Amino acid sequence: MITVNTISQCKQALGITLRPVGLIPTMGSLHEGHLSLIRAAKKDCQSVVVSIFVNPSQFGPNEDYQSYPRDIEGDCALLEKEGVDILFAPTAAEMYTFGHDTWVEVGSITERLEGKARPGHFRGVATIVLKLFNIVNPDTAYFGQKDAQQALVIKKMVKDLDINTNITVMPTVRSQGGLALSSRNQYLSESGRITASAIYQSLKLAEDLYEKGQVNAGFIKDLMRDILNNAGAKIDYISIATADTLEELEIISQKALVSLAVYIGTVRLIDNILLG
Amino acid sequence: MITVNTISQCKQALGITLRPVGLIPTMGSLHEGHLSLIRAAKKDCQSVVVSIFVNPSQFGPNEDYQSYPRDIEGDCALLEKEGVDILFAPTAAEMYTFGHDTWVEVGSITERLEGKARPGHFRGVATIVLKLFNIVNPDTAYFGQKDAQQALVIKKMVKDLDINTNITVMPTVRSQGGLALSSRNQYLSESGRITASAIYQSLKLAEDLYEKGQVNAGFIKDLMRDILNNAGAKIDYISIATADTLEELEIISQKALVSLAVYIGTVRLIDNILLG
Repeated sequence: MITVNTISQCKQALGITLRPVGLIPTMGSLHEGHLSLIRAAKKDCQSVVVSIFVNPSQFGPNEDYQSYPRDIEGDCALLEKEGVDILFAPTAAEMYTFGHDTWVEVGSITERLEGKARPGHFRGVATIVLKLFNIVNPDTAYFGQKDAQQALVIKKMVKDLDINTNITVMPTVRSQGGLALSSRNQYLSESGRITASAIYQSLKLAEDLYEKGQVNAGFIKDLMRDILNNAGAKIDYISIATADTLEELEIISQKALVSLAVYIGTVRLIDNILLG
Repeated sequence: MITVNTISQCKQALGITLRPVGLIPTMGSLHEGHLSLIRAAKKDCQSVVVSIFVNPSQFGPNEDYQSYPRDIEGDCALLEKEGVDILFAPTAAEMYTFGHDTWVEVGSITERLEGKARPGHFRGVATIVLKLFNIVNPDTAYFGQKDAQQALVIKKMVKDLDINTNITVMPTVRSQGGLALSSRNQYLSESGRITASAIYQSLKLAEDLYEKGQVNAGFIKDLMRDILNNAGAKIDYISIATADTLEELEIISQKALVSLAVYIGTVRLIDNILLG
């Protein structure tokens, strides 16, 4: 594996790389969720590039940018083992040079759910992903369904801006109890992990109810809320929305995304499940 | 010359095109200013692509989108003569599909001068240029110094988003009286053309004063204002600003852009000159 830290080194390394190229943009602290993206890229592509960049512009002023878990050595070992070709791990100063002032805004889909809870988050995500696409010029980029709205925002940006990269979204990887893998799970205490198991239970309940014919979104959300409250999770939002544009549904009459954000103590976690 | 009207046709035509590729994005109604860009591209590049697209998103609601001069047949004849390889002339529905919602914002440089006078203008410009870059993937794109702020905005976007396209800016082409060529000059009456000649006179005065040692921007702008007022032009703005970031200068202590926008009757014209 070649590790590069600057944009020009990255472009140089890519100059001698076989196509198609797959890119997995990450913020590091890699887990099996990331590895599933890498393995999908290894299958599809001649060369696999992973970026590790904790992107300051997608964190709010009171969020966990400073404390976000970082483990570049552990990550490198994992990436070597997976047979990744290029690791691109730039600094913030490399990606945002002095006076950086250009931003990509993806409109109404970014104003809902995570975008509403985290103003400016998707502006930061869209901008850094576009920059990475311009630097790496990947044939395909891989994202996880765990960040469902992020995947929709990226797909929308790619379509609206005629970007020449295919977007592949891979299923959420879960631990045995159903907890979606996330770098932020490291923050959880033992008891926090038990509380967090209510997240998947509430999503599975929604799925079960829907499969049994329940299409009243309010009814389903009330029962999800009960499970989460009883477990001691603090609900940020629970949403049942159209799976493509994330417009809230009262009646589940089309493919829907059930998504939620909760706090377990100070740790904010998100998860989702698709219906239909 | 191959003429294509859809994005997929354009990409297909580009698939069999020799590199480097030069792109000249235009809104049509071509004049010698555009042709100077094409000739520069012909010199530098193996293949030359011209786009003609009157971009609705860069016009304000009370601006001249509907009446903007269009002459696709005349344009085609000119482009054939210049030896252009591909003409990309899409419809608005092709470039902005239903639900288009992604925009590029280039920040503070777009809030001044033309950006201040025409809110949203540069958002439309930056977005369509990025789309054209993604569709054509040019090695070099050519812009005219006549739209000085536009050229700076595009350069800033290219730098901030790591876009793999060189930007070449070519000098303003002027008619014998000094009037900068512009598709909007067609709107001028005979007497309007005489009034408009004051634009270049005022810019030349600024240059003369600066070359004689005058560095007081306010003093220079006052005299420019007199010339324009006396000729019967209605001044929208006169600016003397840093040539790179367009911050207004009181004392011309560095490379500066003298720029202005005036109305000749209902016709809005812009022009500029560099000092230092």
